[in-house]
Formats: sequence, structure tokens, C-alpha cells
Amino acid sequence: MHSKFIVIEGLEGAGKTTARDVVVNTLREQSITDIVFTREPGGTPLAEKLRELIKQGITGEVLSDKAELLMLYAARVQLVENVIKPALEQGCWVVGDRHDLSSQAYQGGGRQMDKDLMQQLKQSVLGDFAPDLTLYLDVTPEIGLQRARSRGELDRIERESLAFFTRTRERYLALAATDARIRTIDATQPIDRVSAAIADTVRQWLWEQQ
Amino acid sequence: MHSKFIVIEGLEGAGKTTARDVVVNTLREQSITDIVFTREPGGTPLAEKLRELIKQGITGEVLSDKAELLMLYAARVQLVENVIKPALEQGCWVVGDRHDLSSQAYQGGGRQMDKDLMQQLKQSVLGDFAPDLTLYLDVTPEIGLQRARSRGELDRIERESLAFFTRTRERYLALAATDARIRTIDATQPIDRVSAAIADTVRQWLWEQQ
Repeated sequence: MHSKFIVIEGLEGAGKTTARDVVVNTLREQSITDIVFTREPGGTPLAEKLRELIKQGITGEVLSDKAELLMLYAARVQLVENVIKPALEQGCWVVGDRHDLSSQAYQGGGRQMDKDLMQQLKQSVLGDFAPDLTLYLDVTPEIGLQRARSRGELDRIERESLAFFTRTRERYLALAATDARIRTIDATQPIDRVSAAIADTVRQWLWEQQ
Repeated sequence: MHSKFIVIEGLEGAGKTTARDVVVNTLREQSITDIVFTREPGGTPLAEKLRELIKQGITGEVLSDKAELLMLYAARVQLVENVIKPALEQGCWVVGDRHDLSSQAYQGGGRQMDKDLMQQLKQSVLGDFAPDLTLYLDVTPEIGLQRARSRGELDRIERESLAFFTRTRERYLALAATDARIRTIDATQPIDRVSAAIADTVRQWLWEQQ
């Protein structure tokens, strides 16, 4: 099987870190062990600097939605061109914590940004490049934010309103409904049931690829 | 007279800093003294951080042309929304060291970036907003780079090829030829003649505005 790009998506507190471990263990069952991990925004020295600016902002300066979006795509270009594509070409699998679907959901849905700009940026930066499988961990914002808060201080984006996260979740669900490469996992279940659902989904998908 | 936005443009070594002083002195002759200075990329704390990443890059990481372009526009959004527009609304004049024309010339001309992406970014970030007057200081790349080199170490962009700067200059000249708000100054002349030409151009333009 050719190397693949698998992405884990979802709101804050959806359980992406646990999901990553389940995905990796499930791949290992199939003797897939050359795996590169990425996170977005971030994953290159430059992209990590942009991540910090995006997530923490700058005290006293309003970060405009457009600047945020452009910085997200600048970080994404760097990661895709310098890390993800080279890894796939070398035969490594790539497991990503967030990718373009996050921008579609958070910036497109949550921030309701201009569709033409979003489409142009996606086309220009990614072209036809897309994850082979995306696991969308679906939680209500209420549950997700409660979990995120229990982990400690919230960053600039985590401090957004409930309405923002509700729009973000709606966009996630709408996009997942129209793309067979996105599989939705009910992440409000107890953690062992969520993990089992992820493992089953990945096994089923691997079987479909053969 | 309403407050205005005046921009100084040109290749490295064109003499933008000297030109700024001449512009300011010429404005002062007309009792225009509330002047905000900007530079691009930069001019807000966040935009200055992006400037450093753009101009210095990150050791060992290739900065893609697209990421550079997106970071330039992210910095521009921040500067226009947080500094330039508020200053103009408060009645201050704004004198800028570079603005959007630099991206049109360097990224559009020098780097030959996709026209649709350039157009979409400009439209999305600036809309109808544009400088009232742009002074384009025209020098050949040979003269400009010689002057820039004599000032010390070159940054990431200043180390580009002569062909890059030749394309950049050609784009500057082409755009200046089609926009009456851009005035071209022959900046290869001796400095006192360049300064006199700038002062004459600004005086003439101020007179036209009345």
C-alpha cells in the first residue's frame, strides 16, 4: 500500500491526542511503523512561530480575521511543501493533528470568512492535495470546551464564544456529510468506546484500500 | 485638505529614506505637520515580527514564495486596519515606506506569482483602499544593489538575482505607466537633483489637490 496522509480533526476537547495514539496503534497492527506526526498550525520552525502568533496573539494588538487566515495558510504551505509531501514521497505515513478542514470549519464556519478568499487560498496552497482519511471527532462545544477548560488556561481561539464553536461544529458536520474521505466519530461517548470506534474505522478503511 | 496617504516605493538602494525626509519637509512648508510614518512589511508589533521572518527567514528552512506572499498580506492587513486607516480618520497624514505596489512589483513581477491569487489578496485585504500619491524612485538594479551593498550585509530578499530585480523594476515601470497616482522619479541622478524632483512633484501634486 502507498503511504497515506491521515488527519484527526475536531473542536477543542474532542480528544485528538488520544485518537492519535489509537490511530498509530491500529496502523502498527498492520506493520505500518514509519509514521511522521504533524500538527497545524505548526510543524516547521517558521510555522511554529506563526502558530504562537496565531494562538497567543500580541498583547494590545487586535489580530484581524484576515491576518489570522493568511498566517494559517502561510504555515500550511511551509508544512505541506517541506514536511508532509516529502515524507509521503519517501514512503512514510503522515498522521496530522488538524489540517485544512480546520480552516474550513473555524475560519469559514466560525468566523464566516469570505468564500471566494477561502477557496482561492485552498486552491493556491493545496491544489488537489488532500488527506486520504480524516477522522472528525464530533463533540458539542459545551462538552469540548468543558474538557479544554479542565486542562488549564485557554488560548486566544479557545476563548471564542459558544456561538463561534457552534458554527464551527455545524461546518465540520456539513463538510463531513459531503466527503467520503471524512469519517465522523461520536466523541461524546465514554473514552473506551470512542477509541474502539476510531480503531474500527481505521481498520475498515485500511481494508478498503487494499 | 483631507489627510492623505503618500507612499515611497522603489528597489533596494533607490533612496527611499532620503525621499521620506524631502516629502516631510515639503509637507511642512504647507503647514502639514501631523504625520504618521509607516514601513512595510511592518509597522505594528505583529507585522514587525512577520517582517523579521520575511526578511531574515529561518536558518535551514526554505521559505516558499506563497508563504512569503501570505505573510506580507497578513502584515499589511494589520498595518492598514490598526494604523493607517485610524490615522487618516483622525486627520493625520501618513507617509509610508513601501505599500501594496511593492508586492505587485516584487512578488507579481520578480517572483512571477499567480495573478489570480495576487488579485484576490489585494481585493480582499485592501478593497478600494489605495495611496493618494505614490512616488516611485526608479533606479536600475545595478545602481540600486551597489548602493544597498555599500550599506552592509544584504537580507534574504536583497540577495536575489539581478534577473529578479530586473523583473521587479519592469513591473514597477509598467504599473506606474498606467496609474496617474504613481509618479516616477529618476533616482539615478545626483542626490540633490533627485531631492529637488521629489519636492517639485509633491508641491505640484499638493497644488492639484486644492
